[in-house]
Amino acid sequence: MQTTTGSVTVLGVNPRAAAIANALAAWGHAITVWDETADDAAQALDAALIVVCVENYDALWPLLSRHEQRLAGHDIVNLTSGTEADARSAAARLTGRGARYLDGALMAHPEHVGDPHTVVVYSGSAEVFHRHESVLSALGSATYLGEDAATAALYDLAMLNFAWATLIGYLQSAALLGTDGVAAKTLTPLFTRWLRTTVAEVIEGYADQIDAGAYPGDGEWLELDYPLMDHLIRTTDARGLDSALPRVVEAVTAKGIAAGHGKDSFASLVRVLRR
Amino acid sequence: MQTTTGSVTVLGVNPRAAAIANALAAWGHAITVWDETADDAAQALDAALIVVCVENYDALWPLLSRHEQRLAGHDIVNLTSGTEADARSAAARLTGRGARYLDGALMAHPEHVGDPHTVVVYSGSAEVFHRHESVLSALGSATYLGEDAATAALYDLAMLNFAWATLIGYLQSAALLGTDGVAAKTLTPLFTRWLRTTVAEVIEGYADQIDAGAYPGDGEWLELDYPLMDHLIRTTDARGLDSALPRVVEAVTAKGIAAGHGKDSFASLVRVLRR
Repeated sequence: MQTTTGSVTVLGVNPRAAAIANALAAWGHAITVWDETADDAAQALDAALIVVCVENYDALWPLLSRHEQRLAGHDIVNLTSGTEADARSAAARLTGRGARYLDGALMAHPEHVGDPHTVVVYSGSAEVFHRHESVLSALGSATYLGEDAATAALYDLAMLNFAWATLIGYLQSAALLGTDGVAAKTLTPLFTRWLRTTVAEVIEGYADQIDAGAYPGDGEWLELDYPLMDHLIRTTDARGLDSALPRVVEAVTAKGIAAGHGKDSFASLVRVLRR
Repeated sequence: MQTTTGSVTVLGVNPRAAAIANALAAWGHAITVWDETADDAAQALDAALIVVCVENYDALWPLLSRHEQRLAGHDIVNLTSGTEADARSAAARLTGRGARYLDGALMAHPEHVGDPHTVVVYSGSAEVFHRHESVLSALGSATYLGEDAATAALYDLAMLNFAWATLIGYLQSAALLGTDGVAAKTLTPLFTRWLRTTVAEVIEGYADQIDAGAYPGDGEWLELDYPLMDHLIRTTDARGLDSALPRVVEAVTAKGIAAGHGKDSFASLVRVLRR
């Protein structure tokens, strides 16, 4: 096992780390997969880029304790899953030792690592990201989110929030149509088609509105939606279903109207969510 | 303006009705667009199929009062937007007069009528749906939801619920990442790609689970999600954002775990939503 200038060491022995090493090797990068028990640390850690992917932060801290002196001066990308606090602690500790630290979130099963459709986000050292962007692209599409090392972990949480909201919305709608005897297999192809086309396009339009801070209610506006929300809640209650989800949507919309967004699009609710 | 056996009369003078007439004519159907003020009712209503699409039910009732005797024995498809109660009343009234009644929901702007990707759902008379399915397919993909005339209107409401839940989830996630300075235009392509692939596929898997009434927690299960939901709420609160949405998701999940679904998938929450 040899390291060369321009080489990458993958630190971690688990299915994810193995998938990372395979994806990098497939792109022609010289890879050392470092198994601490067998190999020489000095040699393994003498790489242009050290990619860390261990089980969790409980496994990471003892590893760092043993080797952080050797990591000084190195470029480190940490793909270990954890919280924002974990990422900030690792960043503080390693940059304190003179390393350059980039945190990454790889929300994919091992079999999707290396697929160009796999999203991997990074935050922390812009220098590390830009120097190694072509190497990181071997793992999936690479997006840099900013200087705060914790942002990549926050992105994980934001993705989960988005998925849960969408999925509970789906379950609520399936329960509602189920009261009329419509099977999930009947309604679902219609729902997923709508999700992939219209809903995804509406979201793309909302992104522009959010960044511009202007929410033109050309096609839909809060005062148009509000009575329909009320009708949804009454129907949901009348059919004996839990109405907590539609009630939250209505309550946030009511706040939006009270804040003067009655003629603005649904995207204006981002202002209410920010309080 | 002539009607022939096998012809279709479109009853309504508005952009949607015009789009319906155009889409049917483009497929080679003989169409009468009936403008009450100009044409002979007896002739216009002597069609194999009468498609009604007026502004709303306030406009529909007076029209029916004048002509419902002539509608006896006819096949009627009503694409007027309204509530389930509206659809049930129209069905009761027209079937009481000896007509066959099919209600439809056409959730599309006029320019998308006739596009094969446009979803149009129908409920009510199965006989009318099956006899005219090829005609109705000219308006978009046609799906029959069952004998209850109100189900098509309920579907509208269920689609709105699904869209609102997804969109408010997106806004919440955009607000969360915004606290770290991530622009909506940076995160949105990642979110919509995930929505169109992973999230849509998860929903397709949930459909099978809902219909089977079995929710295997092979890849994810409620007790795995729950601590992440708690972390999401704490992070959301710490960043000064409204946490009502993640709190509803957590509360429903807590009920699911209490009901014995801790090792089951997120789809098991449909049981909780049904109470």
